[in-house]
Amino acid sequence: MPTYHIEMMEGRTVEQKRKLVEEITRVTVEVLGGSPESVDILITDVARHNWATGGKLWSEPR
Amino acid sequence: MPTYHIEMMEGRTVEQKRKLVEEITRVTVEVLGGSPESVDILITDVARHNWATGGKLWSEPR
Amino acid sequence: MPTYHIEMMEGRTVEQKRKLVEEITRVTVEVLGGSPESVDILITDVARHNWATGGKLWSEPR
Amino acid sequence: MPTYHIEMMEGRTVEQKRKLVEEITRVTVEVLGGSPESVDILITDVARHNWATGGKLWSEPR
Amino acid sequence: MPTYHIEMMEGRTVEQKRKLVEEITRVTVEVLGGSPESVDILITDVARHNWATGGKLWSEPR
Amino acid sequence: MPTYHIEMMEGRTVEQKRKLVEEITRVTVEVLGGSPESVDILITDVARHNWATGGKLWSEPR
Repeated sequence: MPTYHIEMMEGRTVEQKRKLVEEITRVTVEVLGGSPESVDILITDVARHNWATGGKLWSEPR
Repeated sequence: MPTYHIEMMEGRTVEQKRKLVEEITRVTVEVLGGSPESVDILITDVARHNWATGGKLWSEPR
Repeated sequence: MPTYHIEMMEGRTVEQKRKLVEEITRVTVEVLGGSPESVDILITDVARHNWATGGKLWSEPR
Repeated sequence: MPTYHIEMMEGRTVEQKRKLVEEITRVTVEVLGGSPESVDILITDVARHNWATGGKLWSEPR
Repeated sequence: MPTYHIEMMEGRTVEQKRKLVEEITRVTVEVLGGSPESVDILITDVARHNWATGGKLWSEPR
Repeated sequence: MPTYHIEMMEGRTVEQKRKLVEEITRVTVEVLGGSPESVDILITDVARHNWATGGKLWSEPR
């Protein structure tokens, strides 16, 4: 039942996502119990011009 | 004032979305009261490689 | 698989929520297909001092 | 530490976003204290056919 | 129409929130145009034991 | 920089959350790279009467 939303900077490969959701589901079941099938994970790829830290978009030079 | 966020697997048509928001707004007003204009609905189309259940992306064979 | 997040002003009864999730699930299946079991709905009750429109919290006089 | 998610209709320029995150970070630090570096802002551009008000998608004629 | 969600550590006063939503609405209208009434802001107060950075909850000693 | 939001049914202990955020941060760094300090995790405890599956709140008998 736990539902994850993960926001990450765009550019990660499907292979990285594949590995990440496998691992997250595994540790979730280890720590919280329940079945793997109850774990939902939704990933959002965020463009660098849509994420800011310190008042500056990540598409800008730092 | 109720604000909906709906995440659905990509691939639904605009016609389906048009019908869905009409119906959701209607039942919301019926049950909660208020005016239709106070109901906001935001839809996110999620790619199959960005949604996992049971530790597996929906872009992978099952 | 569609996942709903509904934010509403605090104060709605469990009976209203019970009716709302029943209706939303019904119209979702009608319009998008799929099984009722694939529809998840999460409700957030928002306090009036945590929601603002027009630059003013809803806990303030209007 | 405050984390902002801003959903806006698609079509705003990067220059508008650049200015917006700068200003939001500034007022956040003024009002809440903390350092600018602790403020994260994530922007979502929403297509007109994915946002509805009053039961009608914004891609439809009004 | 822009919709803000702000997550902040619990403990801010209503007066701080009052000032924050006023300022955010003002800068939003300045930068994006539109009317103040079109700006919605939802605040979530997050408990220190529900926010982690670097693998550690903020309720733990650092 | 990856930011996680985890929604789980209320009732988990702080010890479970402490372990979960530690493990999630660890696997995130393993798979995506980056530093642990760049991983933020926000947890939402959802009441059983605010989560529905199959058109039925989890506070209702099944």
